Amino acid sequence: MDKLSKCEANYVPLSPLTFLKRAAAVYGNRTSIIYEGTRFNWLQTYDRCRRLASSLRSLNMPKHGVVSVLAPNIPAMYEMHFAVPMAEAVLNTINVRLDAKNVASILRHSEAKVFFVDCQYVQLAREALKLYFVEDTDAAGPRVILIDDIDSPTGIRFGEFEYEQFVQMGDPRFLPEEIHDEWDPITLNYTSGTTSAPKGVVYSHRGAYLSTLSLILGWEMGSAPVYLWSLPMFHCNGWTFTWGVAARGGTNVCLRNTTAVTHMCCAPIVFNILLQAKPEERKEIASPVQILTGGAPPPASLLEEIELLGFHVTHAYGLTEATGPALVCEWQSSWNQLPKPDQAKLKARQGISILTLADVDVKNLDTMSSVPRDGKTMGEIVLRGSSIMKGYLKNEEATSQSFKNGWFRTGDVGVIHPDGYLEIKDRSKDVIISGGENISSVELENVLFRHPRVLEAAVVAMPHPQWGESPCAFISVKTNSAGKTDDVNEADILSYCRENLSRFMVPKKVVILPELPKTATGKIQKFQLRALAKNFAVSKDHNAQSRAQILAMSRL
Amino acid sequence: MDKLSKCEANYVPLSPLTFLKRAAAVYGNRTSIIYEGTRFNWLQTYDRCRRLASSLRSLNMPKHGVVSVLAPNIPAMYEMHFAVPMAEAVLNTINVRLDAKNVASILRHSEAKVFFVDCQYVQLAREALKLYFVEDTDAAGPRVILIDDIDSPTGIRFGEFEYEQFVQMGDPRFLPEEIHDEWDPITLNYTSGTTSAPKGVVYSHRGAYLSTLSLILGWEMGSAPVYLWSLPMFHCNGWTFTWGVAARGGTNVCLRNTTAVTHMCCAPIVFNILLQAKPEERKEIASPVQILTGGAPPPASLLEEIELLGFHVTHAYGLTEATGPALVCEWQSSWNQLPKPDQAKLKARQGISILTLADVDVKNLDTMSSVPRDGKTMGEIVLRGSSIMKGYLKNEEATSQSFKNGWFRTGDVGVIHPDGYLEIKDRSKDVIISGGENISSVELENVLFRHPRVLEAAVVAMPHPQWGESPCAFISVKTNSAGKTDDVNEADILSYCRENLSRFMVPKKVVILPELPKTATGKIQKFQLRALAKNFAVSKDHNAQSRAQILAMSRL
Repeated sequence: MDKLSKCEANYVPLSPLTFLKRAAAVYGNRTSIIYEGTRFNWLQTYDRCRRLASSLRSLNMPKHGVVSVLAPNIPAMYEMHFAVPMAEAVLNTINVRLDAKNVASILRHSEAKVFFVDCQYVQLAREALKLYFVEDTDAAGPRVILIDDIDSPTGIRFGEFEYEQFVQMGDPRFLPEEIHDEWDPITLNYTSGTTSAPKGVVYSHRGAYLSTLSLILGWEMGSAPVYLWSLPMFHCNGWTFTWGVAARGGTNVCLRNTTAVTHMCCAPIVFNILLQAKPEERKEIASPVQILTGGAPPPASLLEEIELLGFHVTHAYGLTEATGPALVCEWQSSWNQLPKPDQAKLKARQGISILTLADVDVKNLDTMSSVPRDGKTMGEIVLRGSSIMKGYLKNEEATSQSFKNGWFRTGDVGVIHPDGYLEIKDRSKDVIISGGENISSVELENVLFRHPRVLEAAVVAMPHPQWGESPCAFISVKTNSAGKTDDVNEADILSYCRENLSRFMVPKKVVILPELPKTATGKIQKFQLRALAKNFAVSKDHNAQSRAQILAMSRL
Repeated sequence: MDKLSKCEANYVPLSPLTFLKRAAAVYGNRTSIIYEGTRFNWLQTYDRCRRLASSLRSLNMPKHGVVSVLAPNIPAMYEMHFAVPMAEAVLNTINVRLDAKNVASILRHSEAKVFFVDCQYVQLAREALKLYFVEDTDAAGPRVILIDDIDSPTGIRFGEFEYEQFVQMGDPRFLPEEIHDEWDPITLNYTSGTTSAPKGVVYSHRGAYLSTLSLILGWEMGSAPVYLWSLPMFHCNGWTFTWGVAARGGTNVCLRNTTAVTHMCCAPIVFNILLQAKPEERKEIASPVQILTGGAPPPASLLEEIELLGFHVTHAYGLTEATGPALVCEWQSSWNQLPKPDQAKLKARQGISILTLADVDVKNLDTMSSVPRDGKTMGEIVLRGSSIMKGYLKNEEATSQSFKNGWFRTGDVGVIHPDGYLEIKDRSKDVIISGGENISSVELENVLFRHPRVLEAAVVAMPHPQWGESPCAFISVKTNSAGKTDDVNEADILSYCRENLSRFMVPKKVVILPELPKTATGKIQKFQLRALAKNFAVSKDHNAQSRAQILAMSRL
């Protein structure tokens, strides 16, 4: 039995590239992409990707050379998810909200060979390249290709080629070689840097493939979905739905405002935007739109409100290192009998492992023993499976720290409930240790969210001379019927906290901001708030520096 | 980038065993199996499988030793799909409708170390073992374990142990080692032998895993399905739904008559059974039951009738060597506008490749060139992908013949339609070559099925002195309102054929049988009909021998 060997017919490397080839073969005439007035079908998308890959090959890049891109959710961005790996290169999508310094450091660290820049981000790219060359005047630097708007060309030019011209240059007969090793890198995603310096997370073809299958399955995304790109593709390759929509023969909607969509992904913060829409901005939703949300634990109260609007929310938990979602809060039909607030509470949990993940656990990292399934005992969430990243690019230390005893450490602190569902209590960095007590910032935030006027809430540790650390809460406030927010003050919130929290958990300080600082994907940047909180700890009052910082944030 | 290496956290061998572990962890209290009055939940199933694996390990089998089983769709059969590979053994499920000679030859060829026998098949097993030892009197032979009925024990004993006792002997703390190589064998399935001697098809953990994911996706089987075991598990491991129901946290219904099911698989022949149910046997179907059918091209007319009863049919095509279904006729919403007969015709096509298959094509095997997508040019259907078998056990010749130029040859002749959907025209062995013209037996059968009184139809080649071969049709007939079938005769059918077929395609002979000979899974055994047809070719009349054969078949 062990003599039967692998051959080309029975052992084919797993790669999301097969999804596009298959989509062209079997869904050829279906619409693949809609962007403003531009439409492609799957045959056209396949053709354009092959041409683009052929043009990239003609640049004589080294194998697994990095192709960086700075672009919003436009057709070119989608096409590059296939064309770049077809050219045996590695795609690196850069967060467009980063500053020039960060963009330059990514271009340098990734040793990018080609740099695609959307016409909207020429200024940012130009500054980044300037910084890049200041650091190393001898560097060849990446070859630059401008992406003009395909639907309404601006005429802006930058670098050597324009994208459309570059695509058309490609050989229409080009057939990419199949990949030979599914462990080969496919994309490189830098972490958003909510907690530390961005790290370059490398995905394999195998990991991307399996993660894509899991997400389609976990979300029960059927055939021919119409998918709205509300989540930036530069975030974990759009939680792998870039490849997933091809696998399902669906349609990518790259327009911002459209009604006929069935599926979208977003951070919970987007719920606020939807909920605050004025009556005249709202349209009736004919059939429920499926939302996959993650990036932050969604407060139960928000979930309840958004579902009343006709959205059906699935809650997932993941991180860049796990190729996007790793847990999905799969719905149990028995929960349908429960009152709505209880349903929302159950759905706010992070859930169970996606199907292709081999294992998930919550462990005491000192002993590597699993915590009991009691919904109370906290431990670090650890993951194993083929959709976990290959590692961090050129960062052996971070790579070896994150892989411990055969597990990937998420850095998130959680519990397991008796039904096997995980719930996050905090980032390990965000746990507040006050007088020896662990305080979960998420638990505190959930209480704050239940206040009728609280719109956003984030709690961080603030140094405290007596307790070591104590909680400091940052909130933003919903407008009242007169459109005002200034009728809510720190004292109101503090007295609400005293009524609803154990004494040791009550924040020592509540700061009201017009808006909390967030990453491009809607995650609150706690490191900024932590820096701010330090000032309060020193002076116990708003000193000049913290006022200036608050003012700076108001302009975000 | 190429320095990032595999570790236990980011590279886990793919195996369907992970589905059971996960089901126990996250669907623990959901019902896993219903069989008569017996019910288990996923925690219990996991516990029982681990105990069974532990007992198997205590027998000191060699690694990848074969465990054969002769049983219907009972809980033990389901449990063995996990427990046997957990014990690093290979599961071999034997078709219960084989005769003792065939069972003996499978036990010998597979070198089975353990032989589980359901109480219903003791007689067959006893005869098979007798033949086994006649051939080799010195052989140790497999260790025999009887499976008594778990719900209504018969008290019958045979061999060393009884299954339930064997399970309870197992260590409840046993934790199976994880498999180290996903290319390791998991099961061994002998082909049904419709065309030649049975061959032992070996699946890998990787292939079984990927095939399972594809089938769940292709059939859009959502979370928590209630799955009726109408398809024997011994057929390609139940088209991988043995593992698939665990992956989806569903319920396996091992009872024959039940109403609350959502999903079932069967050959098209089962449609006839459903359609011929008397009014008093019928129950209202509350919500549509999903049927996945395959094994033979379903006549469009049958599809139309069965859907009117409230069943929703998905048509798939596969073969043992492809771990069950390889193509699924995925529905296109635009087809909903077509008249029902046109819909049924589209659905009767075999369809497009399942998601994890790397490629499918129809080729001229002499030139290895693809046929045009014109729906007319015939070629052999070829497949590539990681869910294709490892190969045939101890049969290098058949293995190397079936893998040609990097493709697996299905032996089926088909066409590709302009929309990319494949349609089978015949088994390459079943094509009738008459006076140089290729006649598709499937095409002929489809015409016969449209006759209002034809229940079953199969057309085979019959030697012909002038044309080389000519078509010979075998049919069975539906009862008329008086419950009779004898009002239809050969002449009626022949005149119908002359009205509806090109002259060269009209069968030279039509034989009416009470029932056509079929395999355990409902596939018509054309090799039997072919043998029968030879007699007609010689005498041009019913001679004594063929009459005897027909009589023998009436008793099937």
